[in-house]
Amino acid sequence: MKTVVLKFGGTSVGSIDRIKKVCKIIASYKKKKNKVVVISSAMSGVTNDLINKSKLISNNFEKAEYDALLSTGEQVSCALIAGRLNHIGFKSRSWQSWQIPIITEGPYSSGRIKRVIVKNLKDYLKNGGIPIITGFQGVNNKFRLTTIGRSGSDATAIMLAKFIKADECIIYTDVEGVYTTDPRNYKKAKKIEKIFYDEMLEMASLGSKVMQPTSVQDAKLNNIDINVKSSFILKSGTLITGSKKAFSDQIITGISSTKNDAKITIVGVKDRPGVAASIFKPLSKNLINVDMVVQNISLNGKETDLTFTIKSDDLQKTEKLIKQNKKISFKKLSFDKDVSKVSIIGVGMITAPGITYRMFQALASKKINILVISTSEIKISVLISTKHVKKAISVLHKEFNLD
Amino acid sequence: MKTVVLKFGGTSVGSIDRIKKVCKIIASYKKKKNKVVVISSAMSGVTNDLINKSKLISNNFEKAEYDALLSTGEQVSCALIAGRLNHIGFKSRSWQSWQIPIITEGPYSSGRIKRVIVKNLKDYLKNGGIPIITGFQGVNNKFRLTTIGRSGSDATAIMLAKFIKADECIIYTDVEGVYTTDPRNYKKAKKIEKIFYDEMLEMASLGSKVMQPTSVQDAKLNNIDINVKSSFILKSGTLITGSKKAFSDQIITGISSTKNDAKITIVGVKDRPGVAASIFKPLSKNLINVDMVVQNISLNGKETDLTFTIKSDDLQKTEKLIKQNKKISFKKLSFDKDVSKVSIIGVGMITAPGITYRMFQALASKKINILVISTSEIKISVLISTKHVKKAISVLHKEFNLD
Repeated sequence: MKTVVLKFGGTSVGSIDRIKKVCKIIASYKKKKNKVVVISSAMSGVTNDLINKSKLISNNFEKAEYDALLSTGEQVSCALIAGRLNHIGFKSRSWQSWQIPIITEGPYSSGRIKRVIVKNLKDYLKNGGIPIITGFQGVNNKFRLTTIGRSGSDATAIMLAKFIKADECIIYTDVEGVYTTDPRNYKKAKKIEKIFYDEMLEMASLGSKVMQPTSVQDAKLNNIDINVKSSFILKSGTLITGSKKAFSDQIITGISSTKNDAKITIVGVKDRPGVAASIFKPLSKNLINVDMVVQNISLNGKETDLTFTIKSDDLQKTEKLIKQNKKISFKKLSFDKDVSKVSIIGVGMITAPGITYRMFQALASKKINILVISTSEIKISVLISTKHVKKAISVLHKEFNLD
Repeated sequence: MKTVVLKFGGTSVGSIDRIKKVCKIIASYKKKKNKVVVISSAMSGVTNDLINKSKLISNNFEKAEYDALLSTGEQVSCALIAGRLNHIGFKSRSWQSWQIPIITEGPYSSGRIKRVIVKNLKDYLKNGGIPIITGFQGVNNKFRLTTIGRSGSDATAIMLAKFIKADECIIYTDVEGVYTTDPRNYKKAKKIEKIFYDEMLEMASLGSKVMQPTSVQDAKLNNIDINVKSSFILKSGTLITGSKKAFSDQIITGISSTKNDAKITIVGVKDRPGVAASIFKPLSKNLINVDMVVQNISLNGKETDLTFTIKSDDLQKTEKLIKQNKKISFKKLSFDKDVSKVSIIGVGMITAPGITYRMFQALASKKINILVISTSEIKISVLISTKHVKKAISVLHKEFNLD
């Protein structure tokens, strides 16, 4: 008898009709004699509505109350799912995080699940029950409700799978899985059958919206295989795993791209040890995330140019912080708001030489100018003009046999 | 230093704007150096919306899940109130029933509060905090959420007042208090300053919607004085009490009337011991509530006429049950759907003779025919034609000096 953890996202339980459909999916697993554990998000729209209410009450709503407020969304969807499963003849009940308990640590609104006491759940599973567990929340050592950040329901599913020693963890969502690139950018994008945690981490942090990087990291740390599937269409999804079994010899797994990047170049900075730190310290203090960084070779040993990228929303603030910065001196600041980062990702590139060359060659063949380059073991990113993004994805998708 | 329990109903917290206003009321008590305990209902409309969702999921929604579902409404309003109080500079937090805990017994959806463990609340009050407590719910010995019936937030307030030994319990609602009669029926209706529990019980069960009879009964049993006030207008309300201090010598405190009554007469019933029981047993089994009952004197020792009232919704079912009843025989059934019960209520009538006569005389002066009479120690009810109700209330209101 297998133990299966099923997690349903907000759009999957977004209406009464959707909840009925989701219950049919749950029932199908139960009928196959599995032990079934369900984690649910709030019905789509509910959490945003609660957040809006909190903003109308206070522009600085107290965090502990914020968590007490937001956690109700999942309590509603879980009670409705359990009610429906009872209605169609299954033994089921909702479990709120404090009833299990799911114990969190860390600050309110961004807690992390530390432990799940699974004894009662296991007894309930043994007796044939289907527990429906509130995602996205837990209870801390003060006996108060905490939430674990948006998309936290994925983390709940992964931690439940870990503590209950589940055989499978399936994340039901509104997409069919992880794609080689965003299908909105490139029609020939294909669903990826299997992807390594590390690749998924790069895909996630580079713009693929399927799963939050922290959840993938949780899965990797606990070695939980995750299946991402659509609750709307009956099709196989994407397996996110660390296991090397049955992987194809594909070198590149996927291509991702970003929006809303901006490039800043500080021209003629007085070069001395620690100048980069002096530039980036005030940005970091102001929660401005610096992504790609390139420093030219100091031409005369005295001056250098420094280029880096940030989110374009942060451009004004960044400009101000640099101009106010008394610890540096420079000749000129230049900006480019119309830039995007395109990345190719794949663990295969660790062992395959010449990938960088093939990428640059392919882009050059379409006359796409590369502004900045950054690489990791399993990823190569280039900054290009935003107007070239679709063309770049298309040529790279073909070049690395993803079509 | 006084301890004050404040309870706010659904319309009092029905919008973000209303919640801000309610927080000003709470703050005014705190500024007077009181220890303040707040109980809140769900925002108006929320509970009905959740009930509708449950009905769409199942026409027989499982009771424990129903309670888990409905209890979220108060969790939202309490978090918003606490958030607002924090925003305007007060120390406050929401407490869910399981965090206190408020312990209930009895079935789901109609539990009763058995005990409130007030130790943590008392510590919090001592440190200047304002606890905002979810009304209408508790946690049972299985560690599951239960609700205590509609208007259960009043009961929560009364039980909190009892266990925390509060000096005052104020129920804030959308009316200014209890009236001598329904102002919609009679313009000269006046707010009652003080009313005894027993009078309020009669008023409540006879059609005044201010407080549920079970809550008044709870207050009476625990000897908690209740102040009913409007959260919309700054005015004194009605004190519901058992104390005889400072009561006026008014004989009649109020007049109530019912809608949707129906009168049934079974003509020519074979009279024998137990015949009334034979008639009412199947009605009781089918949860049909029989109110006023009159049996004529058996004319010839063999036959009698039996008249009683029920809710008009139950009329068809009642007719069927009587006709199917093999244990009785009778000549004819007659019905009247257009009847209403008008009652005068007052503990003063215990010691004042002639009240019945004055009532009948007043009605006769307006040519209002009395169909059925029923009396208790502090109440006289008459069944009259519905078309005469307003006239009856008017003449009785004058007769007993309530104008």
